[in-house]
Amino acid sequence: VQKPKKQQAIKDNNFSNRGKTLEDDLNETNTYYLQRQIATIHKKPVPIQIVKVEYPSRSAAVIREAYFRTPSTTDYNGVWNGYYLDFEAKETESKTSFPLKNIHAHQVEHMKNVIQQKGIAFFIIRFSSLDRYFITPFSIVENAWQQMVRGGRKSIPLQQFEAGAIEMKASYQPRIDYLQAVQQFISEEIERD
Amino acid sequence: VQKPKKQQAIKDNNFSNRGKTLEDDLNETNTYYLQRQIATIHKKPVPIQIVKVEYPSRSAAVIREAYFRTPSTTDYNGVWNGYYLDFEAKETESKTSFPLKNIHAHQVEHMKNVIQQKGIAFFIIRFSSLDRYFITPFSIVENAWQQMVRGGRKSIPLQQFEAGAIEMKASYQPRIDYLQAVQQFISEEIERD
Ligand SMILES: [Mg+2]
Ligand SMILES: [Mg+2]
Repeated sequence: VQKPKKQQAIKDNNFSNRGKTLEDDLNETNTYYLQRQIATIHKKPVPIQIVKVEYPSRSAAVIREAYFRTPSTTDYNGVWNGYYLDFEAKETESKTSFPLKNIHAHQVEHMKNVIQQKGIAFFIIRFSSLDRYFITPFSIVENAWQQMVRGGRKSIPLQQFEAGAIEMKASYQPRIDYLQAVQQFISEEIERD
Repeated sequence: VQKPKKQQAIKDNNFSNRGKTLEDDLNETNTYYLQRQIATIHKKPVPIQIVKVEYPSRSAAVIREAYFRTPSTTDYNGVWNGYYLDFEAKETESKTSFPLKNIHAHQVEHMKNVIQQKGIAFFIIRFSSLDRYFITPFSIVENAWQQMVRGGRKSIPLQQFEAGAIEMKASYQPRIDYLQAVQQFISEEIERD
């Protein structure tokens, strides 16, 4: 049985991301931005402590012993129309809240430093089981973090994202058009001043 | 024989950097900037292609096979007072010119993208044998690069740095106060407009 046209169209537009990681989505998005000269944003390499390297003759050096290091900054940064952007991407399987254990204290510290230098810091948080994406101002995470440090809850309820973050749907191109949300942050900031 | 006071003082103030790498100098400088909340600038980790990882029980994961990848961006970036900064640090042993083979084509491409997004791109070039440091606007390297691509010379003569870059002396703290030079670039840019 052939489906009616409209339903077909809806199905084709459902760019569900199950199976893809948030990192895949963001790398595709950043490539899209770069190729169209919209923004220059890159994921930083994973920091590695290299212990042993072999240099076989006539072939490339091989790292034979190395360890993962704790990152001292966030995963992504770059420049968009004169703005310095800095963000961390995180996924959770939870359907109700985002656990703060996913974030390192030094990442929070780094983002404070970014804001202090008039950069724009935010999180891109995906509730994977719900397939929902929230572009989240740093202030929301910072407040929750400070409350946790003072003995408060160790996670941010979904409702707080619904109230204070900007929700984005995954799309075809770009996958997650997070610059739209950043533009909105900037506009709200200007209005408040 | 005890040296006269004045000569002693001169000797103590001679922060010659022989033995230290430019990267050491810049890491110290960036730490200095960060601790005093002057700027938030970091070196990016070296990009690695990881092939094999072992997970020994009760100890950290060990990378057993990995390869160095060609970086697609520059080594350093960050934010200073709302400005996005992006730079590459290079040393040469030559006493007369800087060989362009030290720079990758995709780094030049990346810096073009940075400028296009209104970021500030530059090189910090050290003539190690002369112990001289030049904070070099991207435009100087870009022009030389374009000439090379059209069949011109494959290096930038020292005189071009003396004429168009900002020379800095290594100091105690910060080691290489490159933000001074960046401030000068910005001021000259504003004057020209
Ligand atoms: Mg991360
Ligand atoms: Mg390099």
